[in-house]
Amino acid sequence: MTSTDHTKLKFDQVCIIGIGLIGSSLARAVRENGLADRLVGCDQSRSVCDEAIKLAVVDQATPELAEAAAGSDLIIVSTPVGAIAEVLKTLADAAPAGAVIMDVGSVKGSVTAAAAILPVSLHFVPAHPVAGTEKSGPAAGFAGLFQNRWCILTPLERQDEAYQVAVDKIDALWHAIGSDVVRMDAAHHDLALAVTSHLPHLIAYTLVGAADDLESVNEAEVVKYSAGGFRDFTRIAASNPVMWRDVFLHNKDAVLEVLGRFSEELAVMQRAIRWGDADTLEKAFTRSRSLRQAIIEAGQDSAEPNFGRDTKK
Amino acid sequence: MTSTDHTKLKFDQVCIIGIGLIGSSLARAVRENGLADRLVGCDQSRSVCDEAIKLAVVDQATPELAEAAAGSDLIIVSTPVGAIAEVLKTLADAAPAGAVIMDVGSVKGSVTAAAAILPVSLHFVPAHPVAGTEKSGPAAGFAGLFQNRWCILTPLERQDEAYQVAVDKIDALWHAIGSDVVRMDAAHHDLALAVTSHLPHLIAYTLVGAADDLESVNEAEVVKYSAGGFRDFTRIAASNPVMWRDVFLHNKDAVLEVLGRFSEELAVMQRAIRWGDADTLEKAFTRSRSLRQAIIEAGQDSAEPNFGRDTKK
Repeated sequence: MTSTDHTKLKFDQVCIIGIGLIGSSLARAVRENGLADRLVGCDQSRSVCDEAIKLAVVDQATPELAEAAAGSDLIIVSTPVGAIAEVLKTLADAAPAGAVIMDVGSVKGSVTAAAAILPVSLHFVPAHPVAGTEKSGPAAGFAGLFQNRWCILTPLERQDEAYQVAVDKIDALWHAIGSDVVRMDAAHHDLALAVTSHLPHLIAYTLVGAADDLESVNEAEVVKYSAGGFRDFTRIAASNPVMWRDVFLHNKDAVLEVLGRFSEELAVMQRAIRWGDADTLEKAFTRSRSLRQAIIEAGQDSAEPNFGRDTKK
Repeated sequence: MTSTDHTKLKFDQVCIIGIGLIGSSLARAVRENGLADRLVGCDQSRSVCDEAIKLAVVDQATPELAEAAAGSDLIIVSTPVGAIAEVLKTLADAAPAGAVIMDVGSVKGSVTAAAAILPVSLHFVPAHPVAGTEKSGPAAGFAGLFQNRWCILTPLERQDEAYQVAVDKIDALWHAIGSDVVRMDAAHHDLALAVTSHLPHLIAYTLVGAADDLESVNEAEVVKYSAGGFRDFTRIAASNPVMWRDVFLHNKDAVLEVLGRFSEELAVMQRAIRWGDADTLEKAFTRSRSLRQAIIEAGQDSAEPNFGRDTKK
């Protein structure tokens, strides 16, 4: 819980660096909730800058990082994780003293390490909203993306009051746009998200890739019979390739650990199939239902069959 | 294409053996499309029989197989795959001469072998509608389940005309309830479905099970942060455990083959992560998008972000 009254939370100028799905959704949510007087975008792609202005996601946009940061009291870094260190290096000089800087990357350990370059006058709050879609780019964003989702903060080990105020402000920002907020250390975040997000994406990408490579079953058949289950995996396997490449490069240890656990379990299932071990299979298949039920009850998924996508026709 | 005019297709009495998701959906679809004068249900569970009558899914229902089969010109076997051989054994004596028998199991090789017990006066047509949800039981069924989905027929190697007429009738039945129909041999079916359905279910069950077992990340956290990707897997991992146990026991060879392919690919990804091979990761993550696009264009999935489940609130 935070003591900040987020009905009074307001920034003069919020700068969004990297105007993709998450950056543009945050810009929209900040604007809809009246949390900023002014929104400035920054993206290395000039056409993305132009698109963001045209979509009225930001008031102005530029590929020049120092220019965008000038005069901003909140700077949001929403680039792929692999680009964050370089951005922070520039911000160390370019950001106004007293500014709050928040990243929204899916890996927190490597980002926290990179933040060591920042002077103590800049207040860096690592954040990770556990929300997204498989779409990319500024047009894919929407203000409601963070509603009823969790945002994880992994504050730095700084005890000064100015920093605590900054963390509370960021906490209040996420609450204001509809998220629940939890704080934990970066290492635990990286392990928890390796389980709930990184490994699922790796498995989905791998399954879709393996199907694409088969010679005995052609792509047209994979498409036709995808409603048998395969189509579910293609959704997250359609996510931004550069973003995900960076996640795996930056969360190597945790991902390899949970991948090892998954591979062990898969070997058990493989053996059960090979030897016709009905009991092992049935037991393994029975226990998953309660976890899905818990996810639905927590408001994290739709209770409708097939996510509701087929019955709404 | 079939020459049967399915606007005139009608059975006197359709018997549905196993009144679960698929059986009850078929019963509803048959009734809504006026394809039967009378619907008789059969389920080993008396309470399922009672529920099916109460839901008006069938006109009457009994746990007695021979009683249900009597007087039926179409008998649909919609039990788990492992129960089909036993059902066919009983039907060999109990089904009226000339009756068409269709199963709807997810494995076709073992079912075709089991059908050898049937006399030539019974016309067995193996079918597999590639459609379903994660829900089970008679109340979970709905008539539209098969709309715009593919139904695969794997006809027996019988050249007699009576049999061809039976196959054409079954073909027409699926068209009448909204499906596209394709014919192939049982072995190819079992391989194609191992890719598009069986392996995805195995992987989903395994991933959900592995997450459930971790000591370092507790279940409450898995639930909270499931929107990072994990929740997608819990849907198909909530499917009927007995049905899926039987699928893996009966399609062992094909599943082990495609699982081997998947494991190879996963080892490649694991090595790329371990050695920081950015190119391999990005390339692998890039190629999946076109396959999802093809699935959406083929009408087999929703184009909306997150399957539309989050933006419809």
